[in-house]
Amino acid sequence: MPRHRLRVGALGPTMVLGPGEARHLHVLRLRPGDEVRVFDGGGQEARATLSELDEGRAVLTLGEAVSGAAETPFPLTLGAALLKGDKLSDVVRAATELGVAQVQLLVTARADVREIGPQKLERLNRVAQEASKQSRRAVVPPVRPPVPLAAFQPAGQVLVAQPGAEARVADVVAWHGPLTVITGPEGGLTDAEVAALSARGAHAVTLGPRILRAETAPVALLGAIAALGQ
Amino acid sequence: MPRHRLRVGALGPTMVLGPGEARHLHVLRLRPGDEVRVFDGGGQEARATLSELDEGRAVLTLGEAVSGAAETPFPLTLGAALLKGDKLSDVVRAATELGVAQVQLLVTARADVREIGPQKLERLNRVAQEASKQSRRAVVPPVRPPVPLAAFQPAGQVLVAQPGAEARVADVVAWHGPLTVITGPEGGLTDAEVAALSARGAHAVTLGPRILRAETAPVALLGAIAALGQ
Repeated sequence: MPRHRLRVGALGPTMVLGPGEARHLHVLRLRPGDEVRVFDGGGQEARATLSELDEGRAVLTLGEAVSGAAETPFPLTLGAALLKGDKLSDVVRAATELGVAQVQLLVTARADVREIGPQKLERLNRVAQEASKQSRRAVVPPVRPPVPLAAFQPAGQVLVAQPGAEARVADVVAWHGPLTVITGPEGGLTDAEVAALSARGAHAVTLGPRILRAETAPVALLGAIAALGQ
Repeated sequence: MPRHRLRVGALGPTMVLGPGEARHLHVLRLRPGDEVRVFDGGGQEARATLSELDEGRAVLTLGEAVSGAAETPFPLTLGAALLKGDKLSDVVRAATELGVAQVQLLVTARADVREIGPQKLERLNRVAQEASKQSRRAVVPPVRPPVPLAAFQPAGQVLVAQPGAEARVADVVAWHGPLTVITGPEGGLTDAEVAALSARGAHAVTLGPRILRAETAPVALLGAIAALGQ
């Protein structure tokens, strides 16, 4: 399988890339004749051959389509509250399968865990690596050290799982850009935390009328997003 | 708690039901003055009192709202392939949180487990009981001993998780009656198994372009259904 995936504006018989990308291909030590993958960020992915490469431009020739391109159209971030014991491993594993580009660990008001050791963080990153391989993704999502929820600067559209919210995932998700989903600790986010996120533009979404465990909510929410077909 | 839940078009101070429903209430041996629950299928649920009942119609008087009514509008069944080790416990736990009315274990072509001992089945039922309590449900979903997939008679609308399917959960789920979701073993259901289910009316649905572990797929699929807000 080609090791490099390049984003292009649109898939076409011949795709011309500019100086920036040409330089990047030089850095990757690619040579004319090498195979890469190209994707358009909208779910289309294909094999391609690098047919020309000089300082100013690169030309790619389209190969066969890759069915089941594994990445979401724009980066998907999970902001996950710290959880006790080994629960975060399960969350990271499932989140990787469900397509997240990164996991940002969060310290929240009700957290009964407020920090995480370097060994545990390394372990979570190994879990992401294994899960990525197992689910045939080309990307290993980094698991980032915890930041306080109030300091978290989520990218793009933001969904926060909240029992009793009226909006449903399918009503809200747009995929016009990056998407961030935030899930709380045991006991949930506080009303003040959800209000603060909402004030910054986050959409509170329901996961149905039942109380979910903190480790089930991210899987259910990311499952709902995956089931939207992206 | 009232034993009978009736679906109504919308919750209102007085709700009038037609001859079909009136007959149904007779069959249930309900009498004026009896308490029931009414729900609108959109997440609203309340207590109600049967104030009139004759051959042609029934009149219900609205009581107090039931907050966080935890049951799906119609019974939701998970048909889950047998899995190795303790994975079924995780599936049963999450499925209970996500609202299933029962779990039917299935023996499938690629199963590397073909039976389950009585102790393990009892254990799975204990897991369902604990999860039901934890998620504040009034119902404990039974975990039923395995049957071959070909012998399984699923109730109502049937969804089967299949990588590469075109339909999305949100496109398909109707909640006009019982709903059954079927998920495969490690390695997935065979094409023949999915074809046989489709021939019997099942909808194959996508969970996105990535390969999910057998124990993640049911959580993601039930999460998607829960996120539809029922």
